[in-house]
Amino acid sequence: MSYDIAVVPGDGVGREVTPATVRVLESLDVPFSFTEYEAGDGTLAEAGEALPEVTSQGVESADATLFGAAGESAADVILPLRETVGSFANVRPVRAYPGVDALQPETDLVFVRENTEGVYTGIEDEITEGVTTLTRVVTDDASRRIAAFGFDYAEQRGADVTVAHKANVMRVTDGQFLDSVRAVGDERGAEYDELLMDALAMHLVQRPADFDVVLCPNLAGDLLSDLAAGLVGGLGLLPSANVGTDNALFEPVHGSAPDIAGQGVANPAATMLSAALMLEWLGEDEAGRRVRDAVEGVLSDGPRTPDLGGEAATEDVTEAVVERL
Amino acid sequence: MSYDIAVVPGDGVGREVTPATVRVLESLDVPFSFTEYEAGDGTLAEAGEALPEVTSQGVESADATLFGAAGESAADVILPLRETVGSFANVRPVRAYPGVDALQPETDLVFVRENTEGVYTGIEDEITEGVTTLTRVVTDDASRRIAAFGFDYAEQRGADVTVAHKANVMRVTDGQFLDSVRAVGDERGAEYDELLMDALAMHLVQRPADFDVVLCPNLAGDLLSDLAAGLVGGLGLLPSANVGTDNALFEPVHGSAPDIAGQGVANPAATMLSAALMLEWLGEDEAGRRVRDAVEGVLSDGPRTPDLGGEAATEDVTEAVVERL
Ligand SMILES: CC(C)[C@H](C(=O)O)[C@@H](O)C(=O)O
Ligand SMILES: CC(C)[C@H](C(=O)O)[C@@H](O)C(=O)O
Repeated sequence: MSYDIAVVPGDGVGREVTPATVRVLESLDVPFSFTEYEAGDGTLAEAGEALPEVTSQGVESADATLFGAAGESAADVILPLRETVGSFANVRPVRAYPGVDALQPETDLVFVRENTEGVYTGIEDEITEGVTTLTRVVTDDASRRIAAFGFDYAEQRGADVTVAHKANVMRVTDGQFLDSVRAVGDERGAEYDELLMDALAMHLVQRPADFDVVLCPNLAGDLLSDLAAGLVGGLGLLPSANVGTDNALFEPVHGSAPDIAGQGVANPAATMLSAALMLEWLGEDEAGRRVRDAVEGVLSDGPRTPDLGGEAATEDVTEAVVERL
Repeated sequence: MSYDIAVVPGDGVGREVTPATVRVLESLDVPFSFTEYEAGDGTLAEAGEALPEVTSQGVESADATLFGAAGESAADVILPLRETVGSFANVRPVRAYPGVDALQPETDLVFVRENTEGVYTGIEDEITEGVTTLTRVVTDDASRRIAAFGFDYAEQRGADVTVAHKANVMRVTDGQFLDSVRAVGDERGAEYDELLMDALAMHLVQRPADFDVVLCPNLAGDLLSDLAAGLVGGLGLLPSANVGTDNALFEPVHGSAPDIAGQGVANPAATMLSAALMLEWLGEDEAGRRVRDAVEGVLSDGPRTPDLGGEAATEDVTEAVVERL
């Protein structure tokens, strides 16, 4: 038996950091079988569609997917792929790494972002010329599901939960979100704080160390996690997991970085850390820990790519990670 | 002839910083006539409504309004009052002040936030049990109006414009917003950048000095301006203007701060700086500049309230500002 992993390198630096990460996974004693699929701007140009059916099918039937990055067509690729794996939770750990310049070095938190509804439902219309609407949807089912996931996740880590919302303005929809979260929290006797998302944005900037697990509606999670990325030196190091019931997709938070793509100097750390999340999700906790430790070791005293002030190539970093495994 | 100013102290520290600011305004040689109106949690408890009709009418017929802060009932007070003055633009200058601890001391930017639509329209429904919707509205009219305002504002200051959006996901509505902004920008030959609001959140944290005027849809402006407040030491110093065609309301960005209310130590700077914006809006530029200079002078070497590490009372700061006028 081996794990079937769909690998979707995508565009730009995705095509460099994904093979580097596969190399690391192949150095473990975990049985994998990798199948590569195309998606993104390049595929759109060549095949006329950013996300071919064969890629969706490959992702659907795989045990898990490792995704690189997409360019202009990102939303056309990653949103349907998240749906394909049935992802209801987008998990984004954000922390400062030793030796990496950070505005707020104490940052160590995890966003648990609702990943199916809010303003991401695609229900939009032009009602009459120049008058457009979008239907933001919040359901009890999806809110309870993400709440249960978030409270479980926090409990496993002994972490505190903060719930982000804007129920003073979005009274019915974020009111529903809060009601559902409260119902789940009460059932479990969980303790947690509720905070208006605008106030949270300020507090995250000022005292990120006070937050552990932040449970967010979809768009709030998108914005707040990028904000937090700024506190630890950018998106370059941040991994993420899109988790469904029996499938999941793992991707770095960064994009395709066309400015440095093709030079062989992209930082593979975020993708490798995403692979560590994938290993844990597959139940290979020990291997996940080994990958994370190796990447963190290299980040703190190994070769560095130019984004971290070094001169190393992607390959040098990959070599160093493999050696440390 | 004198300016009719409606004064709405509201709750908590609003009741301390508003009279302090009126005191400063009365020390100028500008003819004012002030009328005080009630609103907020206290009013709700006493009169059964957070925003009595007499207050709305007073605000409507005044030349301008100075607002303090509201507590739990903030949304029930400030959103209708913004509507009462016909506010379509919420203007929020965010900068670090000399002598005040800031995470990013180079920050000096202004949010121009659309103030009538987006997710603030209040069109919400429970479609069936546990399924709720909110209708986000974006129109060409409102988008063009805020764009014209933002480009004018930037031109007067020789400032660059960045337009925040999430049109990769909210394709129709933020697509409309972008189309309208582009139409207005093209008419004027204005140069500006467009940036996804999640990426902007990260860049604001990392390099706020690169931004001048940030033009935002309603909720994005709410979140991003609070984020920026975190970069300069919190909301305590930030003024704001809610600008309509022939009426306007000025308020500090901070809330009613129940933890320190009633002790006479609230920092009046944000409200005084809001009054400076009011003076400028009334065409009293010289007086506006005097108030701002006096407040900044006191912030940099005068008495300080406890939020800035000092031991001064609101009254001491007010005295010092009046002396410097
Ligand atoms: C590309 C875009 C659709 C996506 C999102 O909004 O979720 C991205 O910003 C992210 O956070 O992964
Ligand atoms: C109180 C609330 C309705 C308001 C808003 O969301 O606009 C506040 O957060 C603000 O930014 O002034």
